[in-house]
Amino acid sequence: MSELLGKLKEINAKLANFTTISELLYWDMRTIMPEGGFEAHANAMDYIQTESFRLSNSDELFEILKGLSEPEEWEQLDDMWKFIVKTMREDQERSRRIPEEVFRRAVAITTESEHAWEEAKQASDFSIFAPHLKKQIEITKEIKSYTHPEMELYDALLNDYEKGMDSATIDRIFSELREGLVPLVRQILADKQPDDSKFRRKFDTEAEKKVQKYLLSYIGFDWERGTTAESEHPFTLDLTCSDVRVTNHFREDDVIDPMFSAIHEGGHAIFEQNVNPEYKDTEAGGCSYLGIHESQSRFFENILGRNINFWKPIYADIQKLQPELADVSLEEFAREINHVQASMIRTAADEVTYCLHVILRYEVEKAIFREGVAVEDLPALWNSKMKEYLGIVPKNDAEGILQDMHWSDGSFGYFPTYLLGSIYDGMFLEAMEAELGSVDTLLADGKIGEIRGWLNRKIHWYGNTRLPKEVLQAVCGREATAQPLLRYFREKYARYYPNVKNLK
Amino acid sequence: MSELLGKLKEINAKLANFTTISELLYWDMRTIMPEGGFEAHANAMDYIQTESFRLSNSDELFEILKGLSEPEEWEQLDDMWKFIVKTMREDQERSRRIPEEVFRRAVAITTESEHAWEEAKQASDFSIFAPHLKKQIEITKEIKSYTHPEMELYDALLNDYEKGMDSATIDRIFSELREGLVPLVRQILADKQPDDSKFRRKFDTEAEKKVQKYLLSYIGFDWERGTTAESEHPFTLDLTCSDVRVTNHFREDDVIDPMFSAIHEGGHAIFEQNVNPEYKDTEAGGCSYLGIHESQSRFFENILGRNINFWKPIYADIQKLQPELADVSLEEFAREINHVQASMIRTAADEVTYCLHVILRYEVEKAIFREGVAVEDLPALWNSKMKEYLGIVPKNDAEGILQDMHWSDGSFGYFPTYLLGSIYDGMFLEAMEAELGSVDTLLADGKIGEIRGWLNRKIHWYGNTRLPKEVLQAVCGREATAQPLLRYFREKYARYYPNVKNLK
Repeated sequence: MSELLGKLKEINAKLANFTTISELLYWDMRTIMPEGGFEAHANAMDYIQTESFRLSNSDELFEILKGLSEPEEWEQLDDMWKFIVKTMREDQERSRRIPEEVFRRAVAITTESEHAWEEAKQASDFSIFAPHLKKQIEITKEIKSYTHPEMELYDALLNDYEKGMDSATIDRIFSELREGLVPLVRQILADKQPDDSKFRRKFDTEAEKKVQKYLLSYIGFDWERGTTAESEHPFTLDLTCSDVRVTNHFREDDVIDPMFSAIHEGGHAIFEQNVNPEYKDTEAGGCSYLGIHESQSRFFENILGRNINFWKPIYADIQKLQPELADVSLEEFAREINHVQASMIRTAADEVTYCLHVILRYEVEKAIFREGVAVEDLPALWNSKMKEYLGIVPKNDAEGILQDMHWSDGSFGYFPTYLLGSIYDGMFLEAMEAELGSVDTLLADGKIGEIRGWLNRKIHWYGNTRLPKEVLQAVCGREATAQPLLRYFREKYARYYPNVKNLK
Repeated sequence: MSELLGKLKEINAKLANFTTISELLYWDMRTIMPEGGFEAHANAMDYIQTESFRLSNSDELFEILKGLSEPEEWEQLDDMWKFIVKTMREDQERSRRIPEEVFRRAVAITTESEHAWEEAKQASDFSIFAPHLKKQIEITKEIKSYTHPEMELYDALLNDYEKGMDSATIDRIFSELREGLVPLVRQILADKQPDDSKFRRKFDTEAEKKVQKYLLSYIGFDWERGTTAESEHPFTLDLTCSDVRVTNHFREDDVIDPMFSAIHEGGHAIFEQNVNPEYKDTEAGGCSYLGIHESQSRFFENILGRNINFWKPIYADIQKLQPELADVSLEEFAREINHVQASMIRTAADEVTYCLHVILRYEVEKAIFREGVAVEDLPALWNSKMKEYLGIVPKNDAEGILQDMHWSDGSFGYFPTYLLGSIYDGMFLEAMEAELGSVDTLLADGKIGEIRGWLNRKIHWYGNTRLPKEVLQAVCGREATAQPLLRYFREKYARYYPNVKNLK
């Protein structure tokens, strides 16, 4: 091993320590920390993130990466290290171009903006948030002018969350989807809706916790390299690939939501747990492409979890664990988990209307960054799109444009990744069935391990080393397309909503 | 504020970050970390502890402390900062005298020794542990020759855990106690024992968790500045005085142990939560004198918790939370929590025989460090003392000399603090009753808040700023004595064991 590579490994080990610590602080804050712990956690987080930022942007690392990029060193590197050096160098070069004053200003703007968003949402008053959103948009533009001067602004933003993905591709596939979906959703909503009265009971939350553990084990979550806790909003967090954690929230008035949160977060976790362990503690490990990551959580949650066949081998066990479901037949259960409704809140939306919630946000973001629509005009734009896509209009800002926190911390370009995940899923399902046969049959036979193994081998193993578009090529042999997802929706919903048949 | 004091505050803030992080890593490892998380946690812990050690022993801090000790700076400091500067300076001067090679050797010896102890305990074979114990004793002597050349060796060890306490005092009060206790225990053990069959049921562990929360709230644990989780062995940990955490373990076969662990750890936590908040993040905050700390956990656990009057206002609630106790009368419950039995294991011992377990360990430690008894002869010494004090002999090393892990990590001088805590408690009880009247009456009236308030004001508030002997003087106005504890034992056990009356 070259001396320079040895030095890079040392720095990576140190950066990995910083990651472990900051992730653990975050985990603790979100799961168990008492109110009084906030200040000390915030101070420790600030210390660690400052150290991590310094080291990531240090001249020392710069020289190491530069040296390793020289031909005589580069030739000695294996593919993994070539990927790591190339990625770190590119990231560092972009990051080092941000003047410290700008960086500090961005941190301050975000702190204020997050706070203003909370206040605005509480008061359901967009005007409280608007001036901060403006500042957040301006500082975002300023930062991108340093980091990505060669890229179109909104494409540069998308790139932060789904590297290599561009708005031309997204425009094409989102349009495909929107055109197919708007009429499909109209057909569904005009149809007879199932009786959901059996799901309006009080459910035992201790039983819900047992169901969560059962489901995580069933889909293949590795408990020796993972664990679970409770938090207000479910999330997945990896301290390393061998310590991957999922949270959930348990509610007496909802038995279904915690089940699907468990499967969703379990899908994220199974991804992280199955990346090539040689990539551990490097840029190659984990997966930082959110669309690809989301494709795995949604594959488990929707493609598998909302398929009646998923439940066939286990539904009797679930009924034992959660006795309030004793008089709910499997068919009734399957209808309810595929119950489509027009609703205001993205995070509470069903599998199919969810897509329209995301398309709306994508279009609003483009309106901001491409068309220069004024911040003041955004609520009206939001509401008109809700009317157009879902036929409903928010009665206030809290259930409209203020519902999500993403823009308050400057996460512009994040939303589309949720839908990219679903679109990829349609493609992955098609490719999987071509190789393994009917997923319905595999699920009904309890062979979920075969499905997981396929995802492990085809996708998870490669971690960050394949960019999203490369994953699609390698797994599906084609460019991104929304057609398989549309086909899957049409077939599935025809089962529950007879109206849908007319569309085929 | 002087420039130097400002610098010291900055260093303290940094050290506080290190403490938060290392405590959180420890907490996570003991409560929720999956097996696969060990390596990353260990690496992060190593990094943080190295940084903390470097800063604590740095020339920079040395110069600041030296400067602040010069008359013109010293005179400007308030009492709190005088205490902090004096303590930090003394600790640093001792610590800086340890050559790095010796320090590293000690770390390596401890790692091996802990491992060997686990193996030896598993195999119940002291000979596996003996060579490591020898090395641990030798390196301990070597380190003390650097840090405390002016002190007698065993006194120097005691000083690590109960600053200012000396073996002359301990000899005197432990002898007092042993002389009173050995005949008392004999009387008790010869008496009729209660029927404990109602406690040999299966108990619902979810109910036990609710009981723990009830008890913690009842004794005054502040949930805004603390939380709880499960671990194999119960412990208390403070990230800061406003984030103090207790753990517990819940077992189907034992309903009493988790209750008293809750009250015990709650007592430790209430101490930390009630130290003067101005001391936060400094040497003055918290309490690092283990005897004084233990006196508070044991005051809650034993003096209050094992008093029938403690339960009078709450026993009906406890029975509701834990329905298996419905047919257990308060009197039966009180008898069982004061059930005295000769047993092998310290941590499972009752309030009174516990004292003899500690005296035994204190005498063995003196045999090692004062009398130079050979390591090979320790099991026989242990067993003969068990015979003498409790009339029973371990049938193997696992339930004898190998039962505790303390010596494997070099914690010599730690054991006596457990008993010092109980001895102080007898004195505190006497002083409290002189001021507040009968504790029986206060407890029966549900006025536990008055008791806690007294402990808060008299003891907790001062944190580290009063050494153990100073606490006794300030609170009780006298030197350490075991007589109040003995009197308390005699009175209490006379209630449950009629034989005991003959002793009075």
